[in-house]
Amino acid sequence: MPSILLDEINEQPDVMARLLREQATPIVRLAAAMRSADIDRVLIAARGTSDNAARFAQYLFGAHNQLLVALAAPSLFSRFEQAPRLRHTLAMGISQSGQSPDIVGVLAAARRQSAPTVALTNTPGSPLAATADHVIDLCAGVERSVAATKTYTAALGALAMLSAAMGAAELATGLDAAPAAMAEALGSASAARVAAQALAPASRCVVLGRGYNYATAFELSLKVKELTHLLAEPYSSADFMHGPMAVIEPGFPAVVIDIGPTFRDEFTELRAALSRQRATVVVLTDQPDQSRAGEIVIPVPTSLPEALSPLAAILPAQLLAYYLAHARGLDPDQPRSIHKVTETH
Amino acid sequence: MPSILLDEINEQPDVMARLLREQATPIVRLAAAMRSADIDRVLIAARGTSDNAARFAQYLFGAHNQLLVALAAPSLFSRFEQAPRLRHTLAMGISQSGQSPDIVGVLAAARRQSAPTVALTNTPGSPLAATADHVIDLCAGVERSVAATKTYTAALGALAMLSAAMGAAELATGLDAAPAAMAEALGSASAARVAAQALAPASRCVVLGRGYNYATAFELSLKVKELTHLLAEPYSSADFMHGPMAVIEPGFPAVVIDIGPTFRDEFTELRAALSRQRATVVVLTDQPDQSRAGEIVIPVPTSLPEALSPLAAILPAQLLAYYLAHARGLDPDQPRSIHKVTETH
Repeated sequence: MPSILLDEINEQPDVMARLLREQATPIVRLAAAMRSADIDRVLIAARGTSDNAARFAQYLFGAHNQLLVALAAPSLFSRFEQAPRLRHTLAMGISQSGQSPDIVGVLAAARRQSAPTVALTNTPGSPLAATADHVIDLCAGVERSVAATKTYTAALGALAMLSAAMGAAELATGLDAAPAAMAEALGSASAARVAAQALAPASRCVVLGRGYNYATAFELSLKVKELTHLLAEPYSSADFMHGPMAVIEPGFPAVVIDIGPTFRDEFTELRAALSRQRATVVVLTDQPDQSRAGEIVIPVPTSLPEALSPLAAILPAQLLAYYLAHARGLDPDQPRSIHKVTETH
Repeated sequence: MPSILLDEINEQPDVMARLLREQATPIVRLAAAMRSADIDRVLIAARGTSDNAARFAQYLFGAHNQLLVALAAPSLFSRFEQAPRLRHTLAMGISQSGQSPDIVGVLAAARRQSAPTVALTNTPGSPLAATADHVIDLCAGVERSVAATKTYTAALGALAMLSAAMGAAELATGLDAAPAAMAEALGSASAARVAAQALAPASRCVVLGRGYNYATAFELSLKVKELTHLLAEPYSSADFMHGPMAVIEPGFPAVVIDIGPTFRDEFTELRAALSRQRATVVVLTDQPDQSRAGEIVIPVPTSLPEALSPLAAILPAQLLAYYLAHARGLDPDQPRSIHKVTETH
């Protein structure tokens, strides 16, 4: 069955290759401007899928560039009389459409304070781009599906390119390998379809991740909610162990994103605890051979460093949401009650 | 039936009065130290309930003190080799027990960078307090219940006192009125009990708030999850309209926190949309007379300015979670799988 959403999921390796080719120059220019402005923190304004890209930036810029990232509460800059002061701060808006008035409002407020601004957008002619000093084009082509996919991975890619340009040379090799790793990740489609069958009867689930892939947990949850009407709730696995673990009953579905060495021990413990509670566990992991009996495994590529693994890990997650919509008798190209542009002021 | 949790909910007006009496001096001293260090941003490390107090600080310090607040990803300071630089930054740890190693770790990392540090804790003899330059005692007395209540409102109160001490004189009158407003809020117990009966059959719900009461939405959701095993998911009402609204079916329970003028129009629109979808709607509001037909209303006091309304609004929300546990046949003093101290490293 033809699907706009599936086509766009499959386009992502090509979009990443194009982004790497076409946006290196404006990104290097932005990094140079940040150095001359003595920037040591980044305020990111974004909603929905773009907000999840911002979560990735929080870890990437923090661990690789020593930059403090704050996620903006857009209404602070639009609804209240006074806004936070933005010294030594880059204000970044991320929005595929570049239309959301509240995201534009944060950048406009930053300009009034003479803080440097950048728009990451798939629409270089948009109001957001017009408001920003620097524009990074996400190069994703028109995104026709209501559920964002290729603009999310393009935003992750642009953020990683910026991190590398600001000095994180250790990311350069991984970035070159990203399009191939993303193509490899699409090979997990059949595993994602099996997992979707297991989750289909549920009315709710939790999605657990940490570090760089905290963003992946949020973005998978959002796709699931948008496409399947299943209430998926994302957690830091650290927060989850302290409280919300109480909701887990036998058969309760939990998706665990266990990728890379940093949190390996913690995820091993978490997966054992979920097993004791007889939860239904789906694991996205770069170590499929280490899975526990009863877990449903979706492999992710091992060819990227942990810091860049979210660029590929989200592809099987998107496929999981896509197949879950089908398994629940829904059309992933016609989700209910979603508007492509947030018009929040 | 005697209940530790209910006793502690009812203690909150007294705790607030004690906090106002006893912590004014250390808070004024901290505000002076922030001025001499030219602080223009605050990094807050917290988990669970304390993280929700941090969300309140983001709006309060932003709108009233022009301070940018970043919520720390604690693992950035403990698990990765390099941490963000903290110039002109106050590092604040919020933890009732003061034991969580990852929160202590953020303050220790800040000290190594010579950034000023403060602990908001109910345990002045704790490792967190020992690590901080400044200690604000939450003055809540021993919190015996596993679900935190009085330490949450004490943290909100301490943050509001700090905002006032940093220059937001407009908050002083409201702070003096807070204990009485909290006592008045306890009068909504019977309304909370009615709402609990309506929500009891559900397996999930959403909780919607914005601005200062975005924190209230998160904290109510956390109490509901901890005490009732109902999967409650908090949202900014702005984000909710853009996507997750898709999960709403007839009878789906939604709790809306509609307090104060800033977002009145938006909430009116949201409540109309929920009504059209025939959701089961519970509204915590300072305008109970303006409710729509079919809504279940829990009144909150009108005697506090919007910026301080979260100090009182959470009390009926806690009572809602308490009665919901009873209505679902659970003992709110014996929640499942919750540990009082987060031991995450």
